[in-house]
Order: sequence, then structure tokens, then C-alpha cells
Amino acid sequence: MSKTTPHAPTVVIDDIYPSLEGGRYPIKRVVDEPLTVTADIFKDGHDVITAMLKWRKAGTRRWFESPMKLLENDRWQGECSFPATGRWEFLIEAWPDSYRAWKKAFLARWKGSDPEIGIEALDGARMLHESAERARSAGSAEVATQLEDCASMLRTVAPSEIMDLLQSEELQALLDQQHDRDLGTFSRPQPVIVERERARFSAWYEFFPRNALGRADKHSTFRDGLARLDDAKEMGFDVIYFPPIHPIGETNRKGKNNTLVAYADDVGSPWAIGSKAGGHKSIEPALGTMEDFVWLVGEAKERGMEIALDFAINCAPDHPYVKDHPDWFYVRPDGSIRYAENPPKKYQDIYPINFHCDDWKNLWRELISIVLFWVEKGVKIFRVDNPHTKPVSFWEELIATVHRVDPEIIFLAEAFTAPKMMQVLGKVGFTQSYTYFTWRTHKHELQAYAMELSASEMRWYYRGNFWPNTPDILPHELQNAPASKFRIRAALAATLSSSWGIYSGYELCEGKPLPGREEYSDSEKFQLYSRDWDAPGNIKAFIRELNRIRQNHPAMHLYDNLRFHHADHDQILCYSKCTPDFKDRILCVMSLDAHNEASSMVHLDLGALGLDGSRPYQVTDLLHGHTYEWHGGSNYVSLNPHRVSMHVFEVKQ
Amino acid sequence: MSKTTPHAPTVVIDDIYPSLEGGRYPIKRVVDEPLTVTADIFKDGHDVITAMLKWRKAGTRRWFESPMKLLENDRWQGECSFPATGRWEFLIEAWPDSYRAWKKAFLARWKGSDPEIGIEALDGARMLHESAERARSAGSAEVATQLEDCASMLRTVAPSEIMDLLQSEELQALLDQQHDRDLGTFSRPQPVIVERERARFSAWYEFFPRNALGRADKHSTFRDGLARLDDAKEMGFDVIYFPPIHPIGETNRKGKNNTLVAYADDVGSPWAIGSKAGGHKSIEPALGTMEDFVWLVGEAKERGMEIALDFAINCAPDHPYVKDHPDWFYVRPDGSIRYAENPPKKYQDIYPINFHCDDWKNLWRELISIVLFWVEKGVKIFRVDNPHTKPVSFWEELIATVHRVDPEIIFLAEAFTAPKMMQVLGKVGFTQSYTYFTWRTHKHELQAYAMELSASEMRWYYRGNFWPNTPDILPHELQNAPASKFRIRAALAATLSSSWGIYSGYELCEGKPLPGREEYSDSEKFQLYSRDWDAPGNIKAFIRELNRIRQNHPAMHLYDNLRFHHADHDQILCYSKCTPDFKDRILCVMSLDAHNEASSMVHLDLGALGLDGSRPYQVTDLLHGHTYEWHGGSNYVSLNPHRVSMHVFEVKQ
Repeated sequence: MSKTTPHAPTVVIDDIYPSLEGGRYPIKRVVDEPLTVTADIFKDGHDVITAMLKWRKAGTRRWFESPMKLLENDRWQGECSFPATGRWEFLIEAWPDSYRAWKKAFLARWKGSDPEIGIEALDGARMLHESAERARSAGSAEVATQLEDCASMLRTVAPSEIMDLLQSEELQALLDQQHDRDLGTFSRPQPVIVERERARFSAWYEFFPRNALGRADKHSTFRDGLARLDDAKEMGFDVIYFPPIHPIGETNRKGKNNTLVAYADDVGSPWAIGSKAGGHKSIEPALGTMEDFVWLVGEAKERGMEIALDFAINCAPDHPYVKDHPDWFYVRPDGSIRYAENPPKKYQDIYPINFHCDDWKNLWRELISIVLFWVEKGVKIFRVDNPHTKPVSFWEELIATVHRVDPEIIFLAEAFTAPKMMQVLGKVGFTQSYTYFTWRTHKHELQAYAMELSASEMRWYYRGNFWPNTPDILPHELQNAPASKFRIRAALAATLSSSWGIYSGYELCEGKPLPGREEYSDSEKFQLYSRDWDAPGNIKAFIRELNRIRQNHPAMHLYDNLRFHHADHDQILCYSKCTPDFKDRILCVMSLDAHNEASSMVHLDLGALGLDGSRPYQVTDLLHGHTYEWHGGSNYVSLNPHRVSMHVFEVKQ
Repeated sequence: MSKTTPHAPTVVIDDIYPSLEGGRYPIKRVVDEPLTVTADIFKDGHDVITAMLKWRKAGTRRWFESPMKLLENDRWQGECSFPATGRWEFLIEAWPDSYRAWKKAFLARWKGSDPEIGIEALDGARMLHESAERARSAGSAEVATQLEDCASMLRTVAPSEIMDLLQSEELQALLDQQHDRDLGTFSRPQPVIVERERARFSAWYEFFPRNALGRADKHSTFRDGLARLDDAKEMGFDVIYFPPIHPIGETNRKGKNNTLVAYADDVGSPWAIGSKAGGHKSIEPALGTMEDFVWLVGEAKERGMEIALDFAINCAPDHPYVKDHPDWFYVRPDGSIRYAENPPKKYQDIYPINFHCDDWKNLWRELISIVLFWVEKGVKIFRVDNPHTKPVSFWEELIATVHRVDPEIIFLAEAFTAPKMMQVLGKVGFTQSYTYFTWRTHKHELQAYAMELSASEMRWYYRGNFWPNTPDILPHELQNAPASKFRIRAALAATLSSSWGIYSGYELCEGKPLPGREEYSDSEKFQLYSRDWDAPGNIKAFIRELNRIRQNHPAMHLYDNLRFHHADHDQILCYSKCTPDFKDRILCVMSLDAHNEASSMVHLDLGALGLDGSRPYQVTDLLHGHTYEWHGGSNYVSLNPHRVSMHVFEVKQ
């Protein structure tokens, strides 16, 4: 085969898994997380195929590779992992392996006492000689000599005496370094976003820095926030998320409880960004200075935590952009700028951006520069407000641009909207996403939804971050609910997903709604708020235990290892998370009933837990400390919301 | 929006169905066959989207289009069909429809008594004016005037008085011709192979022209074949398929029953092609001349039939290529050319081609020219021998090249091999394919396999042609079997798929195997063969009835309309085929038991048959003429292989 003649593809490589829209979207991994790739790989005739899984950092030239193996029915499998954060790609290269094919045929000839086997030996010798030549040009003179020696043997020694040589693993290994890949076929490349561990495993705590002191009569500052960091650290959280910290608009500012009229002392919504004090790259003066903020970021870092900022592309009428770039907004026929609305609803404190205005390139560049500005200040995590109301292509460009500067940056999508939009935001690069968990309360809903997220194709691109509440959402389930309900929802969030979070006040079991709404009464979104951060009846110790279990158990750091087990009782949920080697196994048995005792048989899939059904095993409740000896798949549990309403077991055998 | 600024995509268009490997492979349709396309289409915010399904002949510039409609959960659907054979493509274009969005908001404002509605009316007027300008530049002066008139109304008349105008279908229709698509997004194009009706609906009859007379002592000619054409026509077949008609090799010619030694009077295998009389573009002299062949092609055409040729890329040692292009073959170390083998098996009458030799481009061109040569002679259908032993990329190029010359050409893939290879041959363009039907004998196998072919993704690219036998395969099921078994296998093939075929002798219930093999004894592949084409006990009349029913019933012309119904008895198969409008409905009830009576309740899915369960309906047996009145879904059948072993009902209500 001439090195210079291009050839048509020799091997079919189809149906690569995982692959999103044929490689249009990247899958996600964290550093060193194993990836198993499968594909249909086959060719015409009886040739032997060698297939390699190959991967490299996007934009670099050096491929890593590892051989794939045939499973069955032309389905092949390979494994890889990615040693650093950033954009990567993988593909498959496969070629007819003429030496292996010759070897297989030669052995069959030998067994069949083919009289012409001597001529065939010469063909093998030719291949070895050609491999030697490739080794020589690659600078491996020693390998070349070894291969030439083998070629000589094939030419001169009787076939019966070269059988050992043919079956030598060593010779095959030498040859595998010197394959003739001229007839190789490449699959389409498949993109991968490789992120740091916290992209997958994180515990978030959201609070309003202006309310750090818990005083309705005094605006707190970043400096006041240190105590809250310590408190969150004590509860085991590692991401502290702040609502927007930028100057708050004055024109059409909203009053308490989202009323249209603001009084002089009303602090406004932090999501109405921009005043004469500045826009998205400035800090609300009442919170302190940029130095104060950078100091707090440093304090968080010293505690092993990170501060996440809110990225909300909302401009108040006073935002500097409005004066400097009126063309970035929608201009009405009377020359005024259009405020946000969803007729008949009006949001007069916010002007929406026209992402497709004539000057869209400069607009997008400026918006992206906001994120880069805060990255420069040490912020590595952004919670993005309502991304589903901005173009999907904008987010794709923003995330790619930011990741080129720093691939450690994490983006959480706050998109509570239709499923397809939530999914595509994950596909274009959002690291984590809010979910419908907040409203999933029945056993069958929780089970179906958790499996959809962690076991369907979504697991490749959508990392659900489970929040029982947010400043915008006080779900019915938690309204005026007992502490037992707050405990169960926290435990579900903390154990069903590898990432979870709460909005502050949750640990105090705050549950007072606006009448008839799923919103908080006297919401911090619109006012300062008085609270005792150590109020009696709080569940801070319980949350600390949940986070401690998560930290201590590698099985809880994984996202797609959730398995459900059958429980007879319709209010009892039973599920497990294990590491692939089963060295760590967590089994959760949760009663959803916050009021009554519930008892049930639970029927474990012992295989999914890596347990030998013929021997007993020990389950130790990590919350309450008891150890039980269980036998076989079916065992009895009894849960009481007033005492023990859940088990988080460590399983050992 | 400036016409000259390129913009980023505004709409997400994902998960197009049907789409094979993201558009890598074409789907198949026949001329005017409807195609339903669905996709996820959505964008950020509350904008109204308009989505168009667009299609055009590949390589031309004129798009056809039709609007898609929203189903639910951001899933849209559109319909199209293709008016001519050839390569086509479809895609989706979608854009934010600013006028519809404005109209929706305006109505909400009006209902909400928005005091600023007058200003908003001006925005609508601007859009109408811009549409008018687009109409004017497109030369539609009259439309432009109408639109300007509407714009004036919006500017001057009170909102309450323009509500009728706004809700006018006529105005919307005018605007729909003048959309501003500057913000349109296009999906990836998806290729389509559009073929003629016979690609989907055909009945094949294979015979060896050298045995047309049925005389072991005399080689028949093309001229002798006319009687067989008439007989096949009488049985209702429309494709006559000939094994290779080219000069047969002499060196290493095989003897009777595939023996290694041929005697002087042995005729050899037609698949060992090439002698001093010529190669693939020549005719075996014993069959007649090129003129004789062209005459027979014409006779077939006059009878509404077609002659299909076998395209077997096998070269006998005497093939002219061997002398002229030894580099197209594999040369062994001793300088000899490698014959076909699958060690320890050897096929010394055939030299395999090296499709990846240095001169591969000329080789491929020459092989493709063989097909074009016979197309020139009037042959429009090719049955391709063992395509799975040649490169998939070769077939893709061959079929595309031939279709550029004549898109009416049909290719049947004779690949009896692993599933993935059989599938990919369909994906790269084979019109029809042989199947595993030949070996599917149990009820559950037949049901599962027929559904896999006609209801899975395979239905978009793989048209299974069902053959109960071939010259290579006399399945165990038919070996020394009674006529009742031949009838049932024929009926299954003829009704489960829209294409079926038999190898001659089947109609005579020939079933004598080589001992212990699934092959015919004294196979015509290697010898002349004596038979009476009207031997007593033949099932020709039965086959004629099957083909008549197929011809008369449009439901039988469709491939992917097969539905199974439940029958209690494990030897009774019940299935239906209907046209989409239910004007034609065929219901088959088949007993697989060739020896014993079988009785069963059958439980029809009345919805799948378009029947109203509250009224009786009539089932008329098209084979035996009886009409029964049935009520509801469950009815009783009794089948006896010695009398009536199947019903092919026409269903009316």
C-alpha cells in the first residue's frame, strides 16, 4: 500500500456511545473520572480488526490511545479518562490488522496440514520485515532488529518450529507498536468538557450578604458575612452562593413583598442591577468595597470553601448600559426603552437586553467580560439567573470563552422551565442545573425523576443540583411544615444527588408563605429580615451530619451510581450508591411520612450492592449509630418521624 | 436587524426524527410516499416560533417547504413527500415570528386594558410596513399595498376597532408569505434516497436460464426462457432474477454437488465468472448472444416484468482481469495469485479482488462500469452477491454513482451475515435486503423479527425481501416437507413483507437436501437439472392467488404498516396491514402447523384496524371466498392444514 494514495474507508465505525446529537454537544466528565466508550466496529470479509480509543485535549496534537475490545455482535468497548480540566475530544481509529489475520489463518493452515504453508510463512515474514522498517524509521533500531530476526526465522525454519514464536505475546506486543495504519478509519470526534471534582460533588449554602447579621434594622456588609461562612462551614457546606452583589436600581424599585411602591428605606431586589453607583462590575455600596469582597473570597478559600456569584443579566433603568448603549435594549415606537413584561404582567424595574441587536457582537463580548471580571477577582463559580430567557447560543459562546481563560469555572443554570430547554442548557456547557426535585414529593415521582437524571442519556450532560428551597420557591411541601419534613427533604436532596444546596433559613425550618403562593412571606429578596441564626428547633446539627456522611463516603461523590430497591410501603424509598469497586456502599431507607410511623419490608438487589447473598452483611446507620446484621435480599425496617425517620446505612460484608 | 450582519443561532433544533447517525446515512422513501418529520424546536423567552420543513433535490437550489406544527413539550411535526426519484435532502428552518409574538402580546394588553396600547399598535404597524417593503422588493406590489393599508389602520384607528383585523386569517396568510427570516436557524440537512414503487413492492422469481427447459441433457438458452417468463407472469411475479449469465471459468471448475473435480460435460458454477469468452460484460456463449439477452429483457418489459441480474464480484482464474490487472488481486510470495479461502476451506475456482490495492481507484471505476454496462442494456435491477465481503465504502460509491446515471436502479443485497453489516449495507444505499426470515420458524421469532424490520429504526433504511428458499439455502423447515408447509412459508413471506421471492422449484415443492446440510441435492448451481415445470402436486395456483391479493390490495404495497394481534394458540400467527386511511385492510391468520388442526381465539386491536368496536364487521377470506361477521375484538378461528390452513381476510365495516 502506497503511503501517498488516499484510500476509501475500510472499517465501519457507527453508533458511538456516549455521543450527543452525533458529537454536536460535549459530554461531561471530571478529571480522572473513567469513561467507557462503545461503538459498532466491523468490516467486510474475515479480516481481523484492531480498534483504538483515542483522546486528546482540544487544539493539541498529541493523542492518547488505548485498545478497545470486542464485546459481541460487532460492539466494541474501550476505556479512557482525562488527566486535566478543559475541552477534550475522543474518537475511534480502527484498521484491518493484517498480521493478526495472517497469524490466525496460518494457525488454521498448520492444523489443516496445508502443503503450501511454507509460501504463507513468507507472507508473514514480509509483514514482520515491513514492521521492522517502520520501527527503524521511528528510531527504534533495537525493535527493528528483533523483528527482522523473527522475519528470518519465518523464512528459514520449518513451520512446526515457529508455532511458539507465532503465539508469543512479546512479538505481538512489539508489532502492536508498529502497526501499519495506512488503512485506518477514523470516527467523528466527540467533544468532552472535563471539569474539576466540585463540578460533580458540592454542597451549596445561599444567603443574602445584606442580611448576614439577621437584622431588619441594619444592612449587613461583606465584613459581617464572615460569621455566616463559619456557620456554613460548620454545617459542612463548601459553596457559599450570594444573590447579586451589584448596585441596586432606584427607578421603579420594588417595595417589600414585591409591591410596586418602594419607600425611602426599602433596599430593593438585588436582581434589579445597576444604578449611578455602577453596573455588573461594581458592588452595592451598602455591602462594602471591592476590597471587602476580595477579602471575603480569600476567607472562604482559607476555609476550603468558595463564594459563588449570581450572574443575572438584568438591567435596572439606572444601569450605565442604558445610557451608554440604548441600542442594546428594545426601543418602543415612542422612543422609550421597553421594560420586561409577560403581558399582562409588567416588570418595570428591569429592561431586557436585545441579544440580537445590530451591535450584538459587542454586546455579547461585554456580557462575557463581566464573568471574566469576577474570575479575575477570584470567583470560580457562577449561578446563572434565568438562562432560559437568553439565547442558548449566547451561553454556548460564553461558557466556551470563559473556559478558554479558566477551565475551572463552574456554572449552575437556574432554569426552571420546560424540560427540553433545561436539557439543552446542560448540553451547551452548564456544569450543573437546578431541577424539578423541589416539587417531586411522592415516592414514584422521586424515583422516576432521579432515575431520569442519573441513568438516562441526561447523565452525560446534566448534573442535577437538588435544592429543597430557593429565595423564589417555598414549595407547598415545606409551608408551615414540621422539622421532620425539613429533615427528610434535606436528606433526600443530599443523598439522591451528589450536589445539593439550601437557601438560608431552611436550617431554621422557616416556612411561612405568601398566602396562596409558593413564595416566602416578607422575602429577603425585597427587604432586610430579622432572624436568629441559632433559633431553637433548628436542624443545623442534622445537616452537618448529612454533609459529613457525604464527605466521608466516596460513593456519595458520584452522580450516576444511584440504584433503587423495592420497598413494599408506598411512603418508603430505598436506594443505594456504591463505588464501582464496592469498597464504599451507602444504602438509604427514607420514610416520606413526616407524621406517622411506617414499617416495610425492603427487597435489595444484592447484585447492585456487590453483596454475596449466601452470607450475612452488616448495615450501620451513620446517623444514629446502630448496626444490624441482615440476611438475604429482604429485610424489615420501621421508621418513625418522631425518632428515626430514615436510615443512611453503610453496608459491609 | 441589518441584512448584512451574520447572527448567532436563535432557535434550537435538535433530535430530528428520522435521522440516521445524525444525517450520515440517507433514509429511504418511494416517490410520493409521505414522510412525517419531528424535532425538538424551541428558543429562549416567550417568542413565538415559526418552523418550516424544507426539502429539495440534492444539488438543486429550489426548496419546497411546508409549515410544521407544535405537538407538545417543544416537539414539532411536519409532513412532506418527494415527487421524483433521486437523492433528496430535508432540513428544518425556524425563526422567531415577531409579528405573531406582537399580536399575542397585543391581545393580552387589550384584554388587560393596557393604557399604553396605542404605542404598541405603532410597533405592529412598523412590522406590517417592513413586510410590505419585503413584498414590494419581491415584486408583489398588490400584497405590499394591502399590508401598508393594514399598517395605516394600526397607526390611526383605535385599538378596539382593529381587533378584527388582527385576528384575520387573511392578513396572517399575507404576512406568512413575507416573513423576516433574518433570524432563522437551519438544522443539519438529512439525506433521502427516493426510489420507484418497485423498490418497496415486488415479487421475485429466480431461475437458472440454462435450465429453462428443465432438461439435464440440454443446456437451455435465453430464447428458451420465454416460457418461464410466461409461467412466472401467470404466477404473478414481476421481477425475474437470473444467476450470473457471464462466461464460466474453466480452470478449477467445480463438478456436480460442489465437488473439486469437473468432467468435460460439467457446466460449472455461474458464480465463477470469466473465461477466454470474456468477463462481467460478456455472456456465456451457451446461453446465446447479447442480442438474445436484450430481446428477452424486452419480452419481460412487454409483460410488465423486469429481469434482474446477479452482480457477483468473483473472478475465475480465467477472467480477463487476471491477465490484464494482476495487481487488482492478492499476490502470494511465490508470485501466484491468491484464491479465495477461509482456512482451512479453499475456493480454488475464484480469485478475490484486493479492493485496497494501489490501483484501487481504477479498479473501483471498472467494477462500477460493469453495472452501468448492463443498465445500458436495459437492466434496472441487480441482486448483489455477498456484498458483505467487499468494502462498505465501495458499495456506497457504486450505488451513488449508478443513481447519478439512473435513480431507477434497484439493488438487492444478498448479505447473509452478522446483523450490523446487513444493516449498514441498507444504510449506504441498498434498496432491498435478504433477511433471516428464511430461518425464522417459530411464532415468537417471526413476530419479533418482522417487528424489528418494519417498526424499529430499521424501517427507514432496510427493506427486507422475504425468501423462503434460495439456490444456496434449503432450510430444514422445507426439507422433504409437505406442500402445506411450502404454502404456509410462501404465504408468510408474501404477506409479512411487501417484497418477497422464491427460487424456482419452490412452486414444485422441491425439498431434497444434501444429507446433513441446508443445501439442495444436485443443485442447479453446479449442473443441468431435469424437472417438469407442471409436475403434479405443484402450488402454482396458490402462489398466483397470493400475488393477486398483493396486487389488488394497496395495504400490501406498504412496508411499515405491519401490526400483530394476539392469538391464544402458540402456532397461530395473526397480523394485519392497512392503508393509513383504512380504506384497505388485510388481516392474516396463519397456522404454522403443517400437520395438525389448530383452533384459537384471536384478539384484534380494533384501533389498529380502524374498526368501531360497537358495530359488527365483515371478514372475507380472499383465498377461499367465505365471509364471516365478527363482533368485537375476540373471535374464534379453526385452521386445518389439509383444508384451510390460513385466512387472508379483507376487513370491511
